[in-house]
Amino acid sequence: MVETITPRFPRPLSAPGADIGKAVHFGADKPLKLDSGHVLSPFTVAYMTYGALNAAKSNVVLICHALTGDQFVAGQHPVTGRPGWWETMVGPGKPIDTDRFFVISANVLGGCMGTTGPAETDPATGKPYGLSFPLVTVKDMVRAQAMLLDALGIEKVLCVTGGSMGGMQALQWVASYPDRVVTAAPIATAARHSAQNIAFHEVGRQAIMADPDWKAGAYQLEGTQPNKGLSVARMAAHITYLSEAALQRKFGRNLQERESISFGFGPDFQIESYLHHQGMTFVDRFDANAYLYITRAMDYFDLAADYDGVLGEAFRNCKTRFCIVSFTSDWLFPTSENKRIAHALNAVAADVSFVEIESDRGHDAFLLDEPELFAVMRGFLNAAAAQQGVA
Amino acid sequence: MVETITPRFPRPLSAPGADIGKAVHFGADKPLKLDSGHVLSPFTVAYMTYGALNAAKSNVVLICHALTGDQFVAGQHPVTGRPGWWETMVGPGKPIDTDRFFVISANVLGGCMGTTGPAETDPATGKPYGLSFPLVTVKDMVRAQAMLLDALGIEKVLCVTGGSMGGMQALQWVASYPDRVVTAAPIATAARHSAQNIAFHEVGRQAIMADPDWKAGAYQLEGTQPNKGLSVARMAAHITYLSEAALQRKFGRNLQERESISFGFGPDFQIESYLHHQGMTFVDRFDANAYLYITRAMDYFDLAADYDGVLGEAFRNCKTRFCIVSFTSDWLFPTSENKRIAHALNAVAADVSFVEIESDRGHDAFLLDEPELFAVMRGFLNAAAAQQGVA
Repeated sequence: MVETITPRFPRPLSAPGADIGKAVHFGADKPLKLDSGHVLSPFTVAYMTYGALNAAKSNVVLICHALTGDQFVAGQHPVTGRPGWWETMVGPGKPIDTDRFFVISANVLGGCMGTTGPAETDPATGKPYGLSFPLVTVKDMVRAQAMLLDALGIEKVLCVTGGSMGGMQALQWVASYPDRVVTAAPIATAARHSAQNIAFHEVGRQAIMADPDWKAGAYQLEGTQPNKGLSVARMAAHITYLSEAALQRKFGRNLQERESISFGFGPDFQIESYLHHQGMTFVDRFDANAYLYITRAMDYFDLAADYDGVLGEAFRNCKTRFCIVSFTSDWLFPTSENKRIAHALNAVAADVSFVEIESDRGHDAFLLDEPELFAVMRGFLNAAAAQQGVA
Repeated sequence: MVETITPRFPRPLSAPGADIGKAVHFGADKPLKLDSGHVLSPFTVAYMTYGALNAAKSNVVLICHALTGDQFVAGQHPVTGRPGWWETMVGPGKPIDTDRFFVISANVLGGCMGTTGPAETDPATGKPYGLSFPLVTVKDMVRAQAMLLDALGIEKVLCVTGGSMGGMQALQWVASYPDRVVTAAPIATAARHSAQNIAFHEVGRQAIMADPDWKAGAYQLEGTQPNKGLSVARMAAHITYLSEAALQRKFGRNLQERESISFGFGPDFQIESYLHHQGMTFVDRFDANAYLYITRAMDYFDLAADYDGVLGEAFRNCKTRFCIVSFTSDWLFPTSENKRIAHALNAVAADVSFVEIESDRGHDAFLLDEPELFAVMRGFLNAAAAQQGVA
């Protein structure tokens, strides 16, 4: 455990001694066939668990993380020293109550917290994958998670949940493995990435790739870090996670530690200092190539495409109960996209409830202290537990 | 006149032979005192005129341009070879009818189309200003325009208009010179730059300044161009000029000249190719430092700040007639910000009409073929002309 944020790249997290939680290593006998046609083998899935598995193995809650999240949903993060990204939601007595439920969360394929991704060592060459790592999709991420559950001897999950890209994975879980998912709670998400969202991702990727320290993806070998490019990417993305109203409320035109404007290009405004901080701390904890790969996986997500463009067909005959949640001020994954999922589920007579939560905090609301979200999640899980006989 | 887009920096546009339209050079006897306290002298204002001034000098329409616009509102642009930025609005028989009105449009102070800005030569050193150019404000831009009108012997304008930063200038014109402005038509604008808009500008500036070819602003001397950074800045900004709905309608998830995704980082999607094109063509026509200076001027714009925070006081006792226009899908300068101006004008019993135009084209709607905007502008100008006895 470290108390402060420390730069950790280019060291691969798979190096001995790195604290990535738990991990399952899949050898040559367990290859992962990717959507691209590539076969990934061997590979590792890093994960964390919270709470205890019951004897019936019926109390599993699988939490899927968003673009820049990881397996550390609760407790103190071993790399950043900060609380896990869903600390408000997950823990003893919390809405996802680890006194009752066995929580599993895995770092996504292509990520940078121990699961095999572009920053890790390619066993075939002994060097970091970099851009030789194959493109992965959300479906590939879910395939890897299913293999993890197999390895842990877990057949079914009581609930699969997550926000943003985590919600995409929750949807894909039901589509890919309908019999393994009792309930699903996709939050602030979409069944396809929109043109605007692809556009924002492309700006971030271009910012990274424009950084000469990116070295065509081989920065680990070259001993450089595309920190400036990654920081710009993060700043641009961060704006999309908030709402105009929240920015106005939190920052407005307030000046940063000064009485008047400086007539210069320094951070005169609080919003500028805030963005700089977001950019600078991000580069300490995230790998630039992983950012490229995971944003691309989100761009490629279009669940209906596998079903001749008819989203409902992804869920036909599934027995999974759904709870879809959106936030009023989320313009990245707006209510309209979440409703589209609910409508598609309705069209195939699936069991779905839809909740739009009033909040001015934008997309990030799903990570924040939102009592209505907590109440919805607690109620949904309690009902699922009761129905499945979980104590 | 050139037929294709040709890179033109670092050559200063003030060089002999450059076609910047018309220009007034203000010598040592006409210094410009800036809000920052700096005095700019000598300096040049490049401008264009369309139509003819009538004998009473009562038919002047002053058009103020937005962040990346310039003085070439109509006809063919001598540098880009493309139509002027308001070609749809300005010309013989068009809403701003050059058969009746004498249109003046000046490149803003700090710009890069002939008016003195960071890319131009500092007469004191014989080298490009770069970052030694003083920060300018919207009020400074308007001061320079007022000096231009003085030099042209024009006391009053029948109408001052413009969209976005052009609208900011229109508002500032009335605040600074109420007796010189008969009517004002600020379009898709705001009386202050919001936290979200400052944030997007800061991302763009950081992208430029992160480019090693920026050379701390001295790229002209070093013989480099921060094209990658400027291109990323333009791509990020361009997303904010459009609406989610327009992007979905125009591009959706359509692939660019391919049947299926490539599993790579090239421009698979049409929206990506479109953004790349926007970035690449922009660097051929715009100066990176000018982008820094003009975005900063917009950030600093807060008209009420000069009036103890009471926006209406900026317009108390003015006789100017206002027409405020917003577009429903503009999320950069939303209707709420435009209404705020109208409310402030109402509060001091100013003469104001407010029109919100239904459009799904976002902020860029003010530049596009929007019949309702044309009708509003034509009607507003006709009424002003009739009231002032303009034939």
